[in-house]
Amino acid sequence: MSDYRIEPVTDEQLAREQEVQGGLAESTRRLVDAVLRSTVAEEELIAARAEIDALTERLTVSQIPSSYGVSIDPERKSARNYGNAVVGLRNAVAPPLKVIWPESGRARSEFHLGAAYEGPPGLVHGGVSALILDQISGEAAASGGHAGMTGTLTLRYERGTPLGDLYAEAWVDRLDGIKTIVKGEIGDADGPTVRCEGIFIMPRWAREGGDGRPSIFE
Amino acid sequence: MSDYRIEPVTDEQLAREQEVQGGLAESTRRLVDAVLRSTVAEEELIAARAEIDALTERLTVSQIPSSYGVSIDPERKSARNYGNAVVGLRNAVAPPLKVIWPESGRARSEFHLGAAYEGPPGLVHGGVSALILDQISGEAAASGGHAGMTGTLTLRYERGTPLGDLYAEAWVDRLDGIKTIVKGEIGDADGPTVRCEGIFIMPRWAREGGDGRPSIFE
Repeated sequence: MSDYRIEPVTDEQLAREQEVQGGLAESTRRLVDAVLRSTVAEEELIAARAEIDALTERLTVSQIPSSYGVSIDPERKSARNYGNAVVGLRNAVAPPLKVIWPESGRARSEFHLGAAYEGPPGLVHGGVSALILDQISGEAAASGGHAGMTGTLTLRYERGTPLGDLYAEAWVDRLDGIKTIVKGEIGDADGPTVRCEGIFIMPRWAREGGDGRPSIFE
Repeated sequence: MSDYRIEPVTDEQLAREQEVQGGLAESTRRLVDAVLRSTVAEEELIAARAEIDALTERLTVSQIPSSYGVSIDPERKSARNYGNAVVGLRNAVAPPLKVIWPESGRARSEFHLGAAYEGPPGLVHGGVSALILDQISGEAAASGGHAGMTGTLTLRYERGTPLGDLYAEAWVDRLDGIKTIVKGEIGDADGPTVRCEGIFIMPRWAREGGDGRPSIFE
């Protein structure tokens, strides 16, 4: 694990993982929100903790030794980055974002951020906006065939981003040798709240014949 | 909720919240990691999900209506931002960072990032580094008496940040009117991996007599 693995996977297996592993993570996200917002009696919190510890013990009887890494199908029809902090199917830290690529070099997502993504009261943490914009910008670069690691990322905060229903979109602005310059924004129904510009640099292995599938680099 | 509230709190109450609410969140973080990395049988994952749903139901019988916001003691000896996505005591999405202020205008944290913060295989998500640097830079500005909202944040990625034991540090570089320019870095035992520069802008209410307590602005 903790690497790029080439592993065959069937459509049935992918669908089953979505349902079972994705479903478990989705329920865990709701639990995270409940733990943060609950006002039940202290004894009930203590009892809940004991049950959570027991569940963790059952789940860790058998586990991946380190982080999830990325599993790529030999036919490149899927890249499973289930541990990704923004889009990971099995990661309850991730909102998770579902990303679409409306055209080559452009990525977009519409999503909801709840109480667990707060910075200033009622607002999305400025760093969470950065986290999401880094992911969506990397996906825009990759979808344009110019996958890369983040080189620099500059964020301009124009107004507070309210918790709730949001969008993020990024697009390739221009290419400059091994660099892809991407622009993007996050916002709500009233328009952008944070804008960004990122430089993504194609790693050597990708320049020497790899391709640029979305979603596997960040 | 979802605002800055002035609420009295005793030392005993704070200690009890650390233990009970903080303990529950800490166990939930371990569950998040277990959900991501478990390789137990599918039936066991399905059974775990049902138990998690039941727990969520019990915890949501009574809850804060929206996000946690920030609760400030009238004597300003504590600012409880328990929902904060980086440092929030009750937030299982947060690692959480424990921040120290070695001197005015400087903030530092040493922490561990596990599988839930992954981007590229085995590495911290570039956006997670941005998330942490935004928080730690804001805390440096605030500890120097110049609390502010993030105006701009620029990140330079020098090498991959390995998952594991890390540090982040930020310091006020200079002041320019209502702007505080902060520099910072995140890194491992071998030194910095990502460097940042941020401009934090003091909000109007703070300029008109508020003070700059750490930890309450992002």
